[in-house]
Amino acid sequence: MNEIAPFDTRIDPSVLAARLSDERAPDIVEALNEEAPEVAAAILLGLPHERAVEVLDQPELDSAADIIEMLPRDRVASFLSGMSADRITDVFREIEEPGRSDLRARLDAETRGAVDRLSAYGEETVGSLMTTEFVTVPGTWSVAQTLEHVRTVEKTRETIYAIFVLDPRTRALTKAVPLRRLISGDPQDNVLSVAPGRPPLAVSPTASREEAARLISKYDLLALPVVDAVGHLIGIVTVDDMIDAMVEKQTQDVQRFGGMEALPEPYMDIGFLTMIRKRAGWLCALFLSEMLTASAMQGFEGELEKAIVLTLFIPLIMSSGGNSGSQATSLLIRALALHQIRLRDWWKVALRELPTGIVLGSILGLIAVARIAIWQKAGFYDYGPHWPLVAATVGAALIGIVTFGSFAGSMLPFALQRIGFDPATASAPFVATLVDVTGLVIYFSVALLILRGTLL
Amino acid sequence: MNEIAPFDTRIDPSVLAARLSDERAPDIVEALNEEAPEVAAAILLGLPHERAVEVLDQPELDSAADIIEMLPRDRVASFLSGMSADRITDVFREIEEPGRSDLRARLDAETRGAVDRLSAYGEETVGSLMTTEFVTVPGTWSVAQTLEHVRTVEKTRETIYAIFVLDPRTRALTKAVPLRRLISGDPQDNVLSVAPGRPPLAVSPTASREEAARLISKYDLLALPVVDAVGHLIGIVTVDDMIDAMVEKQTQDVQRFGGMEALPEPYMDIGFLTMIRKRAGWLCALFLSEMLTASAMQGFEGELEKAIVLTLFIPLIMSSGGNSGSQATSLLIRALALHQIRLRDWWKVALRELPTGIVLGSILGLIAVARIAIWQKAGFYDYGPHWPLVAATVGAALIGIVTFGSFAGSMLPFALQRIGFDPATASAPFVATLVDVTGLVIYFSVALLILRGTLL
Repeated sequence: MNEIAPFDTRIDPSVLAARLSDERAPDIVEALNEEAPEVAAAILLGLPHERAVEVLDQPELDSAADIIEMLPRDRVASFLSGMSADRITDVFREIEEPGRSDLRARLDAETRGAVDRLSAYGEETVGSLMTTEFVTVPGTWSVAQTLEHVRTVEKTRETIYAIFVLDPRTRALTKAVPLRRLISGDPQDNVLSVAPGRPPLAVSPTASREEAARLISKYDLLALPVVDAVGHLIGIVTVDDMIDAMVEKQTQDVQRFGGMEALPEPYMDIGFLTMIRKRAGWLCALFLSEMLTASAMQGFEGELEKAIVLTLFIPLIMSSGGNSGSQATSLLIRALALHQIRLRDWWKVALRELPTGIVLGSILGLIAVARIAIWQKAGFYDYGPHWPLVAATVGAALIGIVTFGSFAGSMLPFALQRIGFDPATASAPFVATLVDVTGLVIYFSVALLILRGTLL
Repeated sequence: MNEIAPFDTRIDPSVLAARLSDERAPDIVEALNEEAPEVAAAILLGLPHERAVEVLDQPELDSAADIIEMLPRDRVASFLSGMSADRITDVFREIEEPGRSDLRARLDAETRGAVDRLSAYGEETVGSLMTTEFVTVPGTWSVAQTLEHVRTVEKTRETIYAIFVLDPRTRALTKAVPLRRLISGDPQDNVLSVAPGRPPLAVSPTASREEAARLISKYDLLALPVVDAVGHLIGIVTVDDMIDAMVEKQTQDVQRFGGMEALPEPYMDIGFLTMIRKRAGWLCALFLSEMLTASAMQGFEGELEKAIVLTLFIPLIMSSGGNSGSQATSLLIRALALHQIRLRDWWKVALRELPTGIVLGSILGLIAVARIAIWQKAGFYDYGPHWPLVAATVGAALIGIVTFGSFAGSMLPFALQRIGFDPATASAPFVATLVDVTGLVIYFSVALLILRGTLL
C-alpha cells in the first residue's frame, strides 16, 4: 500500500506541502482532511498549482468550501479556473452569501454560466452530478479529424473515452463513440462509421441519481450522456462520480435502515449536537409510537394480573415479530432498488411472505413449546397447572406475530414507494415498532381464546 | 427508456431471438432471465453468434450455467472461446461434475490455463473478480508501436483504457499508462515518456474485493492491476466488474443488517425452501438468545407480582435500547467500511457514544416521565399512589438502557472486525437481542433501587 501515514505532530505547513507534493491527489486529500481548514489552505498554497487544483477537485475533500474561503482573493480565481464546473457547483452550495457571489464574480464567463445552470438542479438529481466537460464533434467529421480534436482538448475534459457525435444541423446528440472503437477505425472514414448502430442511452437532468447509477451499472458505461427536452447534450455523468455517489447513497441507506437520519459527514467529524439531532428525531418518533404498547398493556391489565406467567414471554414474542419484519423489509428494499420487483408486484410478494411467515412462525412456536415443556418437566420453573395451555398460547401467538411481521415488513417498502418516498427510508426499528403494538394485541387475543375459563 | 417490455405470452424461441437480436446485451439478459433455461438456450442459439457470446459474458445472466449445459456440445466450444476467462470461471463454479470437466476439456489451452488459475482464488478475493484480458507492452516500445499494438488487440481485451508497461527483462509491472495520455503523446517517443511518474497502484490476488473497490473508488481508476509476489501482472479488475461486485455487496450488507443470510439470487427467483433456510437460521439463533429474557423475567417474578405496573413499560423500554443500538451499529459499520475509523480507535468511539447515549436516554426519559405524569393527572390511567416513583424508575432505566444500547451497538462492529469478521455481519436484530436481556436487568435493578420499601 502506498498510502500516507498520518502526521504525528504539528509541522510547518510549507514542510508538509513539500512532503505531500509528489503524492497522489486522493492521498493528499486524506492528509488535509486531518488538518484544520486554515492549515489545509496553507498547505495547498505550498503545493504546485496543478496539484493543488487537482486536490480541490476531489469530492472527498471535506472542508473545501472553508479552505477556498481562506485562500487569498488574488489567487482564488486561478484555482477556480482549473476546477471542473460540477465540483465548483458542489463547493458553492456550502458557501454562505456574500462569499458565494464574490467568488462567482471571479469565474470566467463560460464557467460561471455552467455553474449557474448546474446550481439549478436539486441535490438528488442527475443534473447535480453531471459534469459539463465532455468531447463533442459534428457528425460530418472523419475519424482522423475527431482523433486530432480529442488530442487537443484532452487536458480540459473529464473523460475522452466516450466521444459524443452531434447532428451538424440541430446539434442534437446522435451517437456516442467509445474511444476504443475510434482508434481502431480507418482514419479516412466518417466518424459515424465507427459508431454503434443504436442511439446512445441518455437521461434527463431531472432524473434521480439512482436511475443514472442503475444505467451505468447495467450497461457498463464509462459516461452517461444527459440531454434536455430537445435532445441537446448538456452534460455527462462519469463512472467515477457515479461510484462516489453510490458509496454515499449506500452509507445513507445503512444509516436510515439503522433508524436515524443520514449523516452529512464522517462519524468523527460530526459535532456532538448534530449527532444528537440526527439520532434523537427518529428515536423520539419511535418512542412516541412505541408508547402505544404501554396503552395496549394497560388495556390488558386485568388479564396481566390474573396470569403473570403471560408477561414472561412478552419480550421474546415481540422481538420475534420485529426480527421477521426486519428480514422482510431488508429483502424488499433491495429488490425494489434493483428493479427486481415493481410496485405492481406487491401482491405476489404478499402471497409469498404469508406462507413464509407461517412456516417461520411455526418453527419458532415449536421451539417455544419445547422450551416450556422441558423447563416444566425438568422442574426449572413452574408455569402452573395449566402449562400446556400457556405453551399453546405462546406457540400460536408466535405463528400469528411472525406472519404479521413478515407481511408488514415486506409491504412497508412498497407503501413508501407508493407515496413517493425512497423504499430505503424504511428502517429496522420502524418495522419493529410497527409490529410491536399489533404483536401485543395478537398475543393477548390468542391468550383470551385459549385460556378463557382456566387462567383468564 | 429503451429497455424491453416483458413478453406477455409464450412465443416460439426463434421469433424471440429475431426480435431480441438488435437489443443491447444487458436487455437481452433481462429478457432471458424471465425464461426457463431451456427456452433461454434456444433463444441464444437463434441470436447472431457475437451477440450470444456477449450475452453469456454478462454476470447478470442468472442461470448461465444451466443454459450452457443445455447447449449442443458441438457449439459449446465456440461460445466458450468468445467469453472472458473470469466469466467462464464464475460459470464453471456453478456446474457440477462431470459436466465441468467435460466443458473444461473443450477450452483452448490458453483459456483453460487462465480458468484453472482463476478458479484457485476464493470467492471473496480480488483473484475471483479479476480478468486476464489486458494489454501489456515492453518498456522499450515507442508510443506509435504501443498504439499500433492496442489497435490490433482491441477486440480481445476487456479494457484498453489502461496499458500496462512491463520491465523488458524481468517482465515485472513498472507503469500503467492511461490511453488518454498515450494518444496525446509524440508517436516517436518512448512509451515511458507518457507514463505517470509514480509506479502504479496494485493489489494482491488474495486481497479482499472490498480493498479493490476502495482503491478503484478512491483513486478513480478504470482498471486496477493485480500482481503476484514478484510483481508480475496476473490480472486486472475493471471498474464495471467492480461496480457489479459493489452492488452485490450492498445487497448482502442490507440483508445481513436486516438479520438474515444474504440471498444468492433475486427475491422472486429464490425457492420457497431456500428462502426459509436463509431466514430461519438467524431467526432461531436470535430466538434462542432472546429466551434469556424469559429467564430474566422469571428471576424477577416476585417483583412482577408485587408491581404489575412495571410490566406496562417493558416493551417500551426494551425497544428504545434496541433502537439506539441499531443506530450506533449502522453508523460504525459504514465508518469502518469506509476506513474513516480504524480498529484501534474503538475507545474514541466509546468515549463519544457514552455521552451521546446519556443525552439521548435523558430525552426519552423526560418524555416518559411527562407521559406518566400527564396520564396520572388527567385521569387516563392510575399508576397507583407511588406513581412519581414509578415515573422515576422508567426515566432512570431509559437513561441506563439507551446508554448501554448506544455503547454495545457501537462496539459490536469493532468486536466483529477484531475477531476477523466483516463488521457488516452485525445486524439490527442481533443488537436488539444483545441489548434486550441487559435492558431487563437494568430495568429491574433500577426498580429495586427506587421502589424498595414502597412497591417492592
